[in-house]
Amino acid sequence: MLSRIDHVGIAVRDLEAAASFYETTFGLRVVAREIHQDQGVREVMLAVVEGPAGGSYVQLLEPLAPDTPVGRFLARHGEGLHHIGYGVEDIEAALEGIGATGVRRIDERPRHGSMGASIAFLHPRDVGGVLTELVQAAPPVLRHPRL
Amino acid sequence: MLSRIDHVGIAVRDLEAAASFYETTFGLRVVAREIHQDQGVREVMLAVVEGPAGGSYVQLLEPLAPDTPVGRFLARHGEGLHHIGYGVEDIEAALEGIGATGVRRIDERPRHGSMGASIAFLHPRDVGGVLTELVQAAPPVLRHPRL
Repeated sequence: MLSRIDHVGIAVRDLEAAASFYETTFGLRVVAREIHQDQGVREVMLAVVEGPAGGSYVQLLEPLAPDTPVGRFLARHGEGLHHIGYGVEDIEAALEGIGATGVRRIDERPRHGSMGASIAFLHPRDVGGVLTELVQAAPPVLRHPRL
Repeated sequence: MLSRIDHVGIAVRDLEAAASFYETTFGLRVVAREIHQDQGVREVMLAVVEGPAGGSYVQLLEPLAPDTPVGRFLARHGEGLHHIGYGVEDIEAALEGIGATGVRRIDERPRHGSMGASIAFLHPRDVGGVLTELVQAAPPVLRHPRL
């Protein structure tokens, strides 16, 4: 069902400083900068690997305000690992299959995520404390339209 | 420098229950079970992807005792994301390059890790609160000798 580790989501206080750090220290390349008002974050995606069926990315997340999910995470835990995203080929089928096992879904239906992907989050209480995201990647031509 | 997301390390209280959960819910396959006395953990590796140059895995970690790194992590944070491992092709070169940028290394030299890999950890205080591991995979024939 899972086809790759799509991304690791990391909560940061200073998005541009963190992006520069990952570029300089690890040689990663920024492939997208986005703002998601519905999630209360602005983010930078850096590619570890890219391929036609999807890639693996470091996703840096800075809250738009303290009273947002990532803002509250930073207040409680400080900077660090926030969630993990797994690639799937068919997110509707994956959500249905996972729901049938009893795992609660934060998103009952896929919604719009980073780089044109369709995404859905699972409830961390049902995944051993791990905030887990499913990601069906957009076709390559639709992933980085603004960079 | 980084060639893939090698694994996501997840701290768990009950290793076998967690492994069964990942098999059942996400259809992952257990590819290794190991005990690392030096790290105070026993672990299960489940493959998301495998390839000749390395794979992407979910690494479930159960402490051998409360007074171990993962044991202390569980006491402070509960179950959840513990660290992230990135694949590199040449871990000696990667450690040297990263050290030159000023990031402190927990391991100055590579040591033996899961599935025959050479690994080294970087200090989370210098990587935005993220415990970060570098992994040079063993050749495929050496990864799962006991399963």
